[in-house]
Amino acid sequence: MRKNRDNKNRDNKSLESKEQRSDHAAGNGLLSRRVFLEGALLAGAAGSTAGSTAALAEPLAVPRWMTAPGAQFSGYGQPSRFEAKVVRGIAPAPNPATEGIGTARTPLQLLNGMITPNGLHFDRSHSGTPDIDPDQHRLVIHGLVKRPLVFTLEALSRYPMQSRISFIECAGNSGALNAAQAQPLNVQAIHGLISCAEWTGVRLATLLDEAGVDPSAKWVVAEGADAAGMSRSVPLAKCMDDALVCLYQNGERVRPSNGYPIRLLLPGFEGNMNVKWLRRLKLVDAPVMTKDETSKYTILLKDGKAWQFVFPMEVKSVITQPSPGLTLKGPGFYEISGLAWSGNGRIRQVEVSADGGMSFAPAVLQEPVLPKAVTRFRAAWQWNGGPAVLQSRATDETGMVQPTRAAFVAERGLRGQYHYNAIASWRIDEKGEATNALA
Amino acid sequence: MRKNRDNKNRDNKSLESKEQRSDHAAGNGLLSRRVFLEGALLAGAAGSTAGSTAALAEPLAVPRWMTAPGAQFSGYGQPSRFEAKVVRGIAPAPNPATEGIGTARTPLQLLNGMITPNGLHFDRSHSGTPDIDPDQHRLVIHGLVKRPLVFTLEALSRYPMQSRISFIECAGNSGALNAAQAQPLNVQAIHGLISCAEWTGVRLATLLDEAGVDPSAKWVVAEGADAAGMSRSVPLAKCMDDALVCLYQNGERVRPSNGYPIRLLLPGFEGNMNVKWLRRLKLVDAPVMTKDETSKYTILLKDGKAWQFVFPMEVKSVITQPSPGLTLKGPGFYEISGLAWSGNGRIRQVEVSADGGMSFAPAVLQEPVLPKAVTRFRAAWQWNGGPAVLQSRATDETGMVQPTRAAFVAERGLRGQYHYNAIASWRIDEKGEATNALA
Repeated sequence: MRKNRDNKNRDNKSLESKEQRSDHAAGNGLLSRRVFLEGALLAGAAGSTAGSTAALAEPLAVPRWMTAPGAQFSGYGQPSRFEAKVVRGIAPAPNPATEGIGTARTPLQLLNGMITPNGLHFDRSHSGTPDIDPDQHRLVIHGLVKRPLVFTLEALSRYPMQSRISFIECAGNSGALNAAQAQPLNVQAIHGLISCAEWTGVRLATLLDEAGVDPSAKWVVAEGADAAGMSRSVPLAKCMDDALVCLYQNGERVRPSNGYPIRLLLPGFEGNMNVKWLRRLKLVDAPVMTKDETSKYTILLKDGKAWQFVFPMEVKSVITQPSPGLTLKGPGFYEISGLAWSGNGRIRQVEVSADGGMSFAPAVLQEPVLPKAVTRFRAAWQWNGGPAVLQSRATDETGMVQPTRAAFVAERGLRGQYHYNAIASWRIDEKGEATNALA
Repeated sequence: MRKNRDNKNRDNKSLESKEQRSDHAAGNGLLSRRVFLEGALLAGAAGSTAGSTAALAEPLAVPRWMTAPGAQFSGYGQPSRFEAKVVRGIAPAPNPATEGIGTARTPLQLLNGMITPNGLHFDRSHSGTPDIDPDQHRLVIHGLVKRPLVFTLEALSRYPMQSRISFIECAGNSGALNAAQAQPLNVQAIHGLISCAEWTGVRLATLLDEAGVDPSAKWVVAEGADAAGMSRSVPLAKCMDDALVCLYQNGERVRPSNGYPIRLLLPGFEGNMNVKWLRRLKLVDAPVMTKDETSKYTILLKDGKAWQFVFPMEVKSVITQPSPGLTLKGPGFYEISGLAWSGNGRIRQVEVSADGGMSFAPAVLQEPVLPKAVTRFRAAWQWNGGPAVLQSRATDETGMVQPTRAAFVAERGLRGQYHYNAIASWRIDEKGEATNALA
């Protein structure tokens, strides 16, 4: 082991001297994007540290699973039994008196790419997941319309559909960072209330045109068919813009915990407004102060006042690898990878820092970069084995940039839980362990 | 019921007269794409036929699932119990003597969008699904290289990753259409060996650079760790181009039936070459006639000769809705929807016919249109209740167009099962039932 470490250090030094000439892009080991774009520069970088040291014995050993036929086919597949740890994190701990109230968070540290598989899409519910019979479910559009409408699922299925890859983020995501002391939490516990899926459904504008919107209508109250009767007021303009009444999530019918059989998608708006188990859309002339928009989902400020009706989720990013629980295995090459998103459009740029924000290098954005979807970013890092503080800073196409934590707290104070989007930090120590830090 | 039908017909006639002025784009009811692009034109179209006829009683009835808290959170979610019919179709019927040899086909008629959820991705296996312990699994690169390499999963995880949304299609997909008589099969049984997912992994070029490719190497033999030792010869040029050694499928680890823990992705190449359970890449100077490329996966021609080493899947499309099993509920507006793809790049255009190919109208392509991914297409159709034959015809960015069935059979005869990509037809009868037709 000691010998390996020495070999690794020697290899790294030889790489280091080569890299220093041209490929360092920011302090503490951040390399140029050219390392990714011109893959050949990498030769020796990861390999020398990351494996391939075993002598190759030929012929290759035959593992036991090649010696007998494998499992037969299944109608609906499941993950490998060796991935049983890849599950949503449930918080708070289930309470028999209030089960179904809380969150189930996506394990971002164990995923890659932009799509969240349906089994791991986050779930914030206010009174559990109802078991809805789709044949009995109805969607009603009423209030300030020329013609109230009642839709069966079959009726909705007749309309033209649209698909879009879109994130949904809970308004309270990352709220744990708005605290005086850094809590020992991982990326799932802090930031796991963001997921991204391909949603398919009928444009709400099509249905509203069918109902005939009265000119006095300015807002729409959306209500879910859960026991909480979760409901929010939505500006009519959003409903006529890009809102979808979704029947499908990543190709198949929407999952129960995400709103089966119908979910409202308001691309970029805070998660709870994307009402699950959608049963009713009532057109009204002013916002209705439903319990869900008065008891929560307002943004508390430093002076005790609050912002109400702030809907789009602001530009944000988070490093998913490395992150707490994923210990670095010695100095050498690492890919820093994460997600960036904005409720206001496309991500234009993500920058990464390894020195706590003193210097930043641009990350590579994985195509396709889609509006109001997550974008996977990647940066090349040569870790020297010393302490580091990793940060990412996203900019969206409107020019909005993630604020520093200091700037965020100066405006908001340390009271509110909602719409927290400051730059986040992971501290890496000399053992390669990552922890949540308030840098 | 009779009254409803009459009402529907009356509504349709009023719509029809309006539409005929400007919005018919091809014979037998195909409407202009403007119906989708300018949604307002649709007002009255689907609603009048598709529902919303029930009188609205207020206050709304409260369904029983709103009267008590719903289910608590789960670590890994599953589809609704009401969707138990949405499963892969297993063919041939499971045989205890050879279980795990055959296919499990994606239920395309029940899905929408472009992503196939992991539980429904098609599976073609040659000796079942091995139960691989990822800690014991190794990937070897050897043969004509300067430095043979052995990778653990952890070592592979250190390398820079890439993601891409890519289809995989079995070479034998749609082969059931290359028969003298139309068989009574649905879209799943005929075309269900195509799926599309976001795949994430390490560029194979990066690993080959690390190993140091000998100038004499021209091909790579890829071998899987199943009991069949499934193996194929791949041109080195493809491996250096866009091949990925995939660890993730739609965000989570690759599913067992799709190659856990590692699958080779050769974007656009026939499915079996995207070797699952990848254990070995041997660089060689000429293709190796493995059993899997000589006993099958060659393209039989009319004269008894065969093409070998035809790798990219040709441009193709299929209408998924309407299709057999999805009975039309009376005349009126329907969305014709389906998938198009090409192993040679992006889809440029899809045209749809309702009169068996006498006339075609352009369909709307759902963005993002990505190379070597499926593209969802949609067309607006006003069904008059009479017989119809629905077809789709795709063109890719290289200018390749799907051939007619007659042109395809003239070249290939009725013998081969592989790389069938002729225009397919669904016949709609006056009861609204769809059947497979060889038009």
